[in-house]
Amino acid sequence: MPKNAFYAQSGGVTAVINASACGVIETARRHPARIGTVFAGRNGILGALREELIDTGAESAEDIAALRWTPGGAFGSCRYKLAALADNAREYARLIDVFRAHDIGYFFYNGGGDSQDTAHKVSLLADRLGYPVVCVGIPKTVDNDLPCTDTCPGFGSVAKYVAVSVREAALDVASMCETSTRVFILEVMGRHAGWIAAAGALAQRGPDDPPHIILLPEVPFDEAAFLARTRAAVQTRGYCVIVASEGARRADGRFLADAGGKDAFGHVQLGGVAPVLAALVRDRLGYKFHWAVADYLQRSARHIASATDVEQAHAVGRHAVELALAGRGGVMAAIARVSDSPYCWDLAEAPLAEVANVERQLPPEFIRADGFGITAAARRYLAPLIAGEAPPPFEDGLPQYAALGNALVEKKLPAFEA
Amino acid sequence: MPKNAFYAQSGGVTAVINASACGVIETARRHPARIGTVFAGRNGILGALREELIDTGAESAEDIAALRWTPGGAFGSCRYKLAALADNAREYARLIDVFRAHDIGYFFYNGGGDSQDTAHKVSLLADRLGYPVVCVGIPKTVDNDLPCTDTCPGFGSVAKYVAVSVREAALDVASMCETSTRVFILEVMGRHAGWIAAAGALAQRGPDDPPHIILLPEVPFDEAAFLARTRAAVQTRGYCVIVASEGARRADGRFLADAGGKDAFGHVQLGGVAPVLAALVRDRLGYKFHWAVADYLQRSARHIASATDVEQAHAVGRHAVELALAGRGGVMAAIARVSDSPYCWDLAEAPLAEVANVERQLPPEFIRADGFGITAAARRYLAPLIAGEAPPPFEDGLPQYAALGNALVEKKLPAFEA
Repeated sequence: MPKNAFYAQSGGVTAVINASACGVIETARRHPARIGTVFAGRNGILGALREELIDTGAESAEDIAALRWTPGGAFGSCRYKLAALADNAREYARLIDVFRAHDIGYFFYNGGGDSQDTAHKVSLLADRLGYPVVCVGIPKTVDNDLPCTDTCPGFGSVAKYVAVSVREAALDVASMCETSTRVFILEVMGRHAGWIAAAGALAQRGPDDPPHIILLPEVPFDEAAFLARTRAAVQTRGYCVIVASEGARRADGRFLADAGGKDAFGHVQLGGVAPVLAALVRDRLGYKFHWAVADYLQRSARHIASATDVEQAHAVGRHAVELALAGRGGVMAAIARVSDSPYCWDLAEAPLAEVANVERQLPPEFIRADGFGITAAARRYLAPLIAGEAPPPFEDGLPQYAALGNALVEKKLPAFEA
Repeated sequence: MPKNAFYAQSGGVTAVINASACGVIETARRHPARIGTVFAGRNGILGALREELIDTGAESAEDIAALRWTPGGAFGSCRYKLAALADNAREYARLIDVFRAHDIGYFFYNGGGDSQDTAHKVSLLADRLGYPVVCVGIPKTVDNDLPCTDTCPGFGSVAKYVAVSVREAALDVASMCETSTRVFILEVMGRHAGWIAAAGALAQRGPDDPPHIILLPEVPFDEAAFLARTRAAVQTRGYCVIVASEGARRADGRFLADAGGKDAFGHVQLGGVAPVLAALVRDRLGYKFHWAVADYLQRSARHIASATDVEQAHAVGRHAVELALAGRGGVMAAIARVSDSPYCWDLAEAPLAEVANVERQLPPEFIRADGFGITAAARRYLAPLIAGEAPPPFEDGLPQYAALGNALVEKKLPAFEA
């Protein structure tokens, strides 16, 4: 009898996490003798704890295929980290209970470092409890901060969004700078690692092109150098375009976004590094400025996703199933780079123990000596990740995204409070 | 002998203003017996005052064609309004001097209400001074606030950007709302008219779909009603998506963005209606929130431009030249709607005197009774404007935009201080 599979999405969603779900489900459906139903957790791992299992078998092949071009998390995701096994045996045991009740023999967890850690713990526990579950992680983070994989699906599409947006907005600023905005600041995601901000540099065709300044969390903010470089850009080119990571911070570790200002209600200001930098530019340099905060727009912009990213997201989903069928539990499906140009990549795997809870920052050799840009090595790494377009189908001018039925299977266990 | 033409871009640029330039130049080139060189003002009307005239004849047909898919203002634009004729005869006389020196017989001014006003005044003055210049306005504003035309080129593409972004970001929020963000706020442009914010409603497929709240400048902000509606959306659907016009204001006329808060430097907060609303949601409702400010990204996002908008932008450029050749000066090229569905439109013209300085807001019949959304009539008007995709060519994952040579012609007059 084939075992069922459980698939869950975890943490912040991306433009392509559903492409990984598509890869898992489509591949599983091609092996009916080995895999029964793929259950998806409603709102991620919470769905397993609460026994809220979505029967993906009820979805048509067309709807599953449409996941490939649908952003967000089709089954719901959650920010919920299982505590250490020693402190939280109850929740881990519950997972196994649910798996047992629904005859689940495969566990696919699609997320970042925390999720790979959870998958690892479930894998260990299942062994210890003598309930066989093959646990395979599927990488996902826009932050590109997982080790052991060339890149994380989700990142390439945000990188493309940022590079395209910078190229476009810079043309706007350049046209108007004589009598209007001199300094434009785009705030992007990346609280601990600067991969996304670094990708803004791909907008450049030549060394003097915008963005003129990139602020990375890896480089302590040097106010004097920042102001000098902003002034120099305005004086030589007429304007200055800045890409700032939300994680940009001072030498003492405080985020720039923690400006300590008060809003109209007397509360500490809500953050946003862009307005803080804008105030600095205004007060010290007196230039007219504009700022944008891309926020969720950047990680949900499936309309401008990287075809490479979509392909890799689907491939790691497929590969996770293939690994599981080969009995290779305790690993994460991964991408291995074969060459930069032409970009060739292969599917790979990495032990969950090595992936879990490791955060990969921009390496020093990717950061330009002055700290405000990236090196040629970084460009060689980043450029292929945004290659290719994979637009969703449009109707009446709007992308047509999947909306699944998401019917839950009947519960078999008593309720459980997560 | 053919007369030369002068073309200038004015005010905030858009994703498609260069498509209008393309329409002007391509059409002029088809009439070499009537029109000599098309000179473009470097940085708009300032280029005329300073006698900084770009020789568009030096650009290849390929580069001119590429303007059709290049955002920003290819020749530079400016925020510079000529004062009333009575107060500023000097500048108007200078324009005529420059036109005379360069044998310019056609003046095409591509901008919003102010620019149409300037074109009107130049037209009157040229008549009075006995120097014949055919003045034709070309509409352009993302704000869609010009009268006498079905829509303003530039608006349809921003509308599409906002509708697409809302649809995408809403999927992100919906996936995560169980354990993360409950309220998402997207701030869009439109200081005096709510057309752009209204277009966010096109993201909806059904009446309960996001965005759940739209804040328009035309409707005084009702804090209690806003909070009640936000709470209701979260309670019934789990989350609330809000599109807020930067021009949202209180009953006393103060912009919501003028929160009166102080930043870390003790200065009045920089504005941005989204963070103000976010603070309100946090303090009164306690929901986790995220906010985005699209700023220049929305009006430069040529990659997701509306094909209808691009076509209309090009067509009004072409039509302006056709009107000029027919001797019809003192008018603005315009779009006339023939039918909503299918959307049929025709080229038209409107007297500059009727266009100048009139600001078209959302009419009351387009605003839902509760003030937080739009009516079916508004939807019928807006929907066709975002129809169709017209992506630019991509290379290495990035849109390839034109970069013109912009060589200036030799000056013939003494310098002039604008």
